[in-house]
Amino acid sequence: MSDPIEFWFDFSSPYAYIAAQRIEAVAEKHGRTVAWRPFLLGVAFRETDGRPLTHFPLKGPYSAHDMARTAREHGIDFALPEPFPVNSMVAARVFYWLNDRDPDQALAFAKAVYRAYFADGRNIGEPAVVLEIAVEQGLDPDDLKAAAEDPAVKEKLKQATAEAVQEKGVFGAPFMIVDGEPFWGADRIDVVDRWLETGGW
Amino acid sequence: MSDPIEFWFDFSSPYAYIAAQRIEAVAEKHGRTVAWRPFLLGVAFRETDGRPLTHFPLKGPYSAHDMARTAREHGIDFALPEPFPVNSMVAARVFYWLNDRDPDQALAFAKAVYRAYFADGRNIGEPAVVLEIAVEQGLDPDDLKAAAEDPAVKEKLKQATAEAVQEKGVFGAPFMIVDGEPFWGADRIDVVDRWLETGGW
Repeated sequence: MSDPIEFWFDFSSPYAYIAAQRIEAVAEKHGRTVAWRPFLLGVAFRETDGRPLTHFPLKGPYSAHDMARTAREHGIDFALPEPFPVNSMVAARVFYWLNDRDPDQALAFAKAVYRAYFADGRNIGEPAVVLEIAVEQGLDPDDLKAAAEDPAVKEKLKQATAEAVQEKGVFGAPFMIVDGEPFWGADRIDVVDRWLETGGW
Repeated sequence: MSDPIEFWFDFSSPYAYIAAQRIEAVAEKHGRTVAWRPFLLGVAFRETDGRPLTHFPLKGPYSAHDMARTAREHGIDFALPEPFPVNSMVAARVFYWLNDRDPDQALAFAKAVYRAYFADGRNIGEPAVVLEIAVEQGLDPDDLKAAAEDPAVKEKLKQATAEAVQEKGVFGAPFMIVDGEPFWGADRIDVVDRWLETGGW
């Protein structure tokens, strides 16, 4: 059994949202699974002098246009939300807490969070909204509140972010790692597909 | 006859070099021509707070790896040159001077400059190297020296760069404009292909 494709993402990244709608089909086509790994892109930005794409002059309006165009091409519901970006920490913590219990449920939660923010315009930077989404997924609100404040869960996200940035060299989202080979950006999904098809070049 | 595809590039941009090897085949496939438009990316970077990709922590090593991988996939000779980046002003001026006289010769010169820098590692930031390349293309060295210092030629590049950045919103290279639709990045060549195929979406 081959290693899973590492899919590093931030719940506040539009291009990671777009890639998230496509990565599983590509993995499945090649008999692979996907390891979903949320991290805090803001921490990576501190290392690399990065900032949200839409905050750059010229590049900002282009990026907003390109995100919508890319989503349209792939039939993905998308509207750049307001506010943007938001702090995705609570969503990422809940994900890791769930993932230890039930990875399928964690994945369903991740998809629900992405849809809530980028399709339905709900502010996932608000902890109350994240909890609402989790409850809509059938989770117990009291468990969730405890989880979001659990020091072990906080530590897990901190570790994941450190692993991404310090060990794996992840500086943007989405960032995919296939058998050690790094691919940055939603536009690299097709390259990952060809890489797996051919065995690399 | 449809409008040509505008292909904005800087002679010092590796991804524009890669795109330059592919854009004409895509245009031809759809019955289009390409308007080759060098500009000074450094001027755009002053507007957008940009800098060469390889100068970012983490993103730098990744980009160098991705450029080489992208070139390999498409069978394009490539080695990230040293020094990098260089000032592409003289090459761009000679291009515009030639383009007024003989667009085919200007295109052959552009390809020769790109090959010299990204395949053969010659320092095209040196005016003497640019003149050497032009002479190898059969041009007269005295004409060239005069052209590179001609105020009208200097003005032409200045105008082209202003048109790119101020009017067209070009902030990176390569940057392609197809019937008003902007596409940034070598990885958007395939998107341009599908856009022309389908008439857009």
